[in-house]
Amino acid sequence: MLFRRSYNLYNKFYLRWLLYFFLALDMVLALIEKPARDGWLVPYWLTVIDIICYLIWDNLQSPSHAIRWSRPLRPLFMINFPDGKQVRRAFRNIRRTLPEILNVLILFIMMVLLFALLALKLFSRRTLVYPNGRAYFKNYWESIWDLYVLVTTANNPDVMMPAYDYSSYFALFFIAYTIICLYIFMSIVLAAIYYSYRKNLKNEVKAAVYMKRKKLSQAFDILKSEKDGRFVITFPVWCALMKKVIPSRSRSHIDLLVRVLDIDGDNAVRKSQFLKLADLLELPLTEVKDRQTFLEKMVPNIYNSKASSYLKFAVRHWVFRWTFYILIFGNAWFIAFDVDEADWAFLSVFMVEIILKMYVLGPKEFFKKAWNTFDFIVIGAAVIVSSIEAIEEASYEEFQLLDYLLVLRVLRLFKIFGSIKRFKVILQTVANIIPSITTYGAVIYVTYYFFAIIGMELFGGLIKFYGPADTGHPFCGNDALNNTYFAMFHYCNNNFNDMIRSLVVLFELMVVNQWHDILYFINVTNVAVRAYFFAFHMWCVIIILNIFIAFVLEAFMLEY
Amino acid sequence: MLFRRSYNLYNKFYLRWLLYFFLALDMVLALIEKPARDGWLVPYWLTVIDIICYLIWDNLQSPSHAIRWSRPLRPLFMINFPDGKQVRRAFRNIRRTLPEILNVLILFIMMVLLFALLALKLFSRRTLVYPNGRAYFKNYWESIWDLYVLVTTANNPDVMMPAYDYSSYFALFFIAYTIICLYIFMSIVLAAIYYSYRKNLKNEVKAAVYMKRKKLSQAFDILKSEKDGRFVITFPVWCALMKKVIPSRSRSHIDLLVRVLDIDGDNAVRKSQFLKLADLLELPLTEVKDRQTFLEKMVPNIYNSKASSYLKFAVRHWVFRWTFYILIFGNAWFIAFDVDEADWAFLSVFMVEIILKMYVLGPKEFFKKAWNTFDFIVIGAAVIVSSIEAIEEASYEEFQLLDYLLVLRVLRLFKIFGSIKRFKVILQTVANIIPSITTYGAVIYVTYYFFAIIGMELFGGLIKFYGPADTGHPFCGNDALNNTYFAMFHYCNNNFNDMIRSLVVLFELMVVNQWHDILYFINVTNVAVRAYFFAFHMWCVIIILNIFIAFVLEAFMLEY
Ligand code: NA
Repeated sequence: MLFRRSYNLYNKFYLRWLLYFFLALDMVLALIEKPARDGWLVPYWLTVIDIICYLIWDNLQSPSHAIRWSRPLRPLFMINFPDGKQVRRAFRNIRRTLPEILNVLILFIMMVLLFALLALKLFSRRTLVYPNGRAYFKNYWESIWDLYVLVTTANNPDVMMPAYDYSSYFALFFIAYTIICLYIFMSIVLAAIYYSYRKNLKNEVKAAVYMKRKKLSQAFDILKSEKDGRFVITFPVWCALMKKVIPSRSRSHIDLLVRVLDIDGDNAVRKSQFLKLADLLELPLTEVKDRQTFLEKMVPNIYNSKASSYLKFAVRHWVFRWTFYILIFGNAWFIAFDVDEADWAFLSVFMVEIILKMYVLGPKEFFKKAWNTFDFIVIGAAVIVSSIEAIEEASYEEFQLLDYLLVLRVLRLFKIFGSIKRFKVILQTVANIIPSITTYGAVIYVTYYFFAIIGMELFGGLIKFYGPADTGHPFCGNDALNNTYFAMFHYCNNNFNDMIRSLVVLFELMVVNQWHDILYFINVTNVAVRAYFFAFHMWCVIIILNIFIAFVLEAFMLEY
Repeated sequence: MLFRRSYNLYNKFYLRWLLYFFLALDMVLALIEKPARDGWLVPYWLTVIDIICYLIWDNLQSPSHAIRWSRPLRPLFMINFPDGKQVRRAFRNIRRTLPEILNVLILFIMMVLLFALLALKLFSRRTLVYPNGRAYFKNYWESIWDLYVLVTTANNPDVMMPAYDYSSYFALFFIAYTIICLYIFMSIVLAAIYYSYRKNLKNEVKAAVYMKRKKLSQAFDILKSEKDGRFVITFPVWCALMKKVIPSRSRSHIDLLVRVLDIDGDNAVRKSQFLKLADLLELPLTEVKDRQTFLEKMVPNIYNSKASSYLKFAVRHWVFRWTFYILIFGNAWFIAFDVDEADWAFLSVFMVEIILKMYVLGPKEFFKKAWNTFDFIVIGAAVIVSSIEAIEEASYEEFQLLDYLLVLRVLRLFKIFGSIKRFKVILQTVANIIPSITTYGAVIYVTYYFFAIIGMELFGGLIKFYGPADTGHPFCGNDALNNTYFAMFHYCNNNFNDMIRSLVVLFELMVVNQWHDILYFINVTNVAVRAYFFAFHMWCVIIILNIFIAFVLEAFMLEY
C-alpha cells in the first residue's frame, strides 16, 4: 500500500517535473561553475545545491561516494529513470558486447606494442627528427604513442616522413602497419561488434517476447472467469479493462479489438487470443471521423464550385509540382549569386504555394506531412524576419537578424529532398532510425559529460583564449606552447575552461583528425594524461562509434 | 578445331610464362620511364616496347585507343586473364553495386552543396581568414571544397576555428554538418554497399550453382550410355574421365568417389548422382600413407626407446609450452631494453625448441602448421644473419645487416599469437579471408596504377626532393610552395616524380589524413586538379574501401 501510494506520488505530474527541474539544474551546474582545481573558489551555494542534489539521489538509489567524484557521474542519474529505458538498454548492450570483442582489442593492442618495438629497433639508432625538432622513435613509450596515433590516422604522413626521406624502403613498414592495424583490425573490430550486436539484439527481442507473454498470462489469470468449462475474459470485464488501459480510445475501437480477438464469436476472449493483445494494441489505428476539410465544412458552396475544382485539379497536377522544383533551383541560383532583390518574389511565390496546398488538402492533412510542416515553419519564419528587417530598416551591420534570414533562405532549399522520390526512400530510412539514434546521442552525451568534467579538472585554465584579434598572447597565455603547432594553428579556443568548450574539444577528438592539437595539452601538464586521450579514443571512437555504425547497418538492413 | 588448337597453344607452359613476362614488363615500364610531360624525352626503345605491347593487346582484345591513353589502363589487361577471374568478379560486383548506391551518393553531394551555400552566406560577409592568411569561405567553389575535405576529416578543427573564435555558436554549424554528412551519411553509404554486396553475392552464388549443374548435365549427356533402360555412366567411362580430371589422385581415391556416388551399387553413376561430382571433388581428402615420422622409420630402436618416450612426453606437456611463452616475454623485455648479449642465449633456446618439436612430430607434421614454418624461417634466418655478423665482425655501422637482425628478433615475438588459443580463432578468421583480401588488393592495385600514371602526367617533376639533409631548397624546388604547410612539414618527398613515390602518396591519400599536403599540389598547378583528388577519394575511399569493409563484415559473419 505504501508502495502504491509512493508510486502514485512519483507519477504525479508536478512532482515529476520538479524532479526533472532538479536534474536539469544538476546538469547545468557544470555550465556555470568553475573547475574545482583552485581549491574552494567554487561558490558556496552551488556546492550546497550539488550536495543536496547528490544526497537526495544518494539516499534514493546509489551507494555512497565522495562528493567531488560524483560530478563526472552525474549524467548517469539520468539513465536511472523509467524514461531512460532505451538508454539503459543501449548501455546493457554495450556491456554485453565488450567481453566478446575484448580478445580482438587485446590482440590489436599487442600488435601495436610489437610494431612499436620494431619501429624502436629500426629508427632509434638513426639520427632522425621531426620537422619541429621532436625526437623520432627514441624510446618505447613514444614509439607506442606515435603508432597508436597512427591508427587514428591523425599523424598520417608526418610519422612516416623522416624515415621515408631517409630510405624509401621504410615506407613499407608504415604501409604494412596501416594495412594490418587500421584497415584489417579496425574492420574486424567493427565486424565483431556487429556480430555481437546482432546476437544480443536477437536475444533481447526473444526475452522481451517471453516477458510479454508471461505478464499477459498473469493478467489473464487475475481477470479470468469460467464459462462453459473454459477460462475466459467476459465482455464486461474486457470493456472495464480497456477503459483503464486505453482511456483515450473510443468505444468502437474497443469493440473492434474484441471482435478481432474473439474468433469464435461467443463475446469472450480466450487465453491464447488474449496473449495477442499487446501486439494488437501497438498497431497504429486511425479513426477517420471526417474527410471534409475545414473550408469544405464552412463554405461548401464556394469550396465545391467549378472554379475551386479547377484550382484543386491544377494544384494536384504534376506541372504544379515541377514548376516549384524549377523555382527552388532558380532560388538556389539567385542565393548563390547574392541577388537579394529577388528574394521577396520567391518568398511570395512559396507563400502562395503553401496557401494553395493548405486550401486543397485542408490544414489537418497539410500538417500531417513532416515536409509541409518544415516548409511552413521555414517560410513563415522568413516572412516574419524579413518583415522585421523591412519595418525597422535594419542595416546590414545587424548581423544577427540577417544571419537568421540567410539561414532560412538556404533551409528553404532543403525541401527539394522531400519532393524527389528517389531520395524519399533514403530519407525515410534515416527518419525511421532517428529515434534510436537519439538513444546513442544520450550514450555519447553521458560519455562526453564524464570526460568533459575530468578534462576540466585536469586542464581547466591552463590554456587561455584572448579573442580572435589578440596578438599580445601568441602562446595562448602559456609559454609551454611556444614553438608548437597548437599555437601556430590558432587552437587556443580548443581548451577545457568551460563546459561548452570542453564538449567542442571532445567532439573534435571524436572526429579524430589533428590529434596533434590535443597532444599539446601534454606540453602544459604531464605525459601521463595521454591515458585520458587513449581512454576517450578507445571508448568513444573504437567502441561507441562502431556500435553506432553496427546499429545503422542493422537498422538499414531492416528498413531498406 | 582451330579453337581447340589455339587453346592448347595458349595452355602451353612456356607460352603462358612468356605472356606473363610481357605483362610484367608492361607493368614495370612505369617504374623506369619518366612522365611524358616534357614531350619526347622518353627513350625511343621504351616507347617501342610500349607500342608493341599495346598493339599485341589491342589486336587481341580491346578496341583501339590512342597510345598515350593506354598507359593508365595497362593493369586492366591483367584482369582479362582466366587467372584474374576473382578480380573480374570483384569488378563486376562493384559495377553492380554502383547504381544501387548512386542515390545515396547524389543525396550526399547535394547535402554538401547546400551546406556549402549556407556556410558561404554565414561566413563570407565576415572578415575571417585562416591562420596562414587564406580566405575563409569567400566563394562558392572554395566553400564546397573546404566542406568536402571536412567529410574526409582532414581539415577537422582548422576549418571551424576562425568561425568558432568569432562566435561559439558557429561550432553548431560544423558539428551538425559533421554528424549529418560524416557520421550518418557515411554509415548509410556503408550500409547501402553492404546490403547490395550481400544481395549480389547471393545472386552470384545462385548463378554459379545453376551453371555448375548445367555444365555437369551437359557432360553427362555426352558420356552417358544406356543400361537396363536408364542412362548412366559406366564404371570404365568413369575411370577414364577421372584420369583426365584428377590425374594426380590415386586409383583408391577414384574408387572411393564412385562408391560414394553409386548408391545402388550397380557400378554405374546415374545423372542425379553425377551432378554432385563437383562438390565431392572440392572436399579436401588426405591420403594417409604413413603415420611414422622420418626418424621412426630410420632408427626405430632409438626413437621408440624409453628415454625418447620421456622426451616426447615432456615436449607435449603443457609445462613445455608455458616455459616458451614466458621465454618469449622475457625475450621481449631484453629486446626492449637493448640487452643484446642475451640474444645468442634466446636464439639457442628457440633453436632447441624447434629441433625438439621436429623430433617429436617429424618434419612433415611440423611444417604442416603455418606457425611452425614461420618460426623455422625466422629463427633460421636469425641464425644465418647472426653468424655472418659474428664471422665478419661487422661493425654497428653496417646498418643493413643489423636491420635484418633486429627485425628478425622482433618478428620472433609474433609467434606468441600463434600459441595463445583465444587469439587463434581471430587469426584463423583473418587467415581464411586473406586469399579474398588479395582480390581487393588487386582491385586497389589497378586503381593505384591508373591514378599514379595520371598523377605522374599531371604533377611529375613539379616538386623535387633534395635529400633529407638539404637546406638549400626550402620550398621543394618550387617557389609556389613558399609559406605553405607542405614545405614546413617537409613533405617534399610526397611527389609524383616516379612510380614508387606516386604509389606512396596515393596510399597517404587513401588514409585520408593531412589532405593539406596534397592540396598544395594545387599551388603548383591549377585549381581544376581538385577533380583528380575528388575522384580518387570518391572511388578509392568511399566506394572501394567500403566494399572491402562490407566484404570483411560478411566474411567474418560466416567464419566466426
Ligand atoms: Na584524419
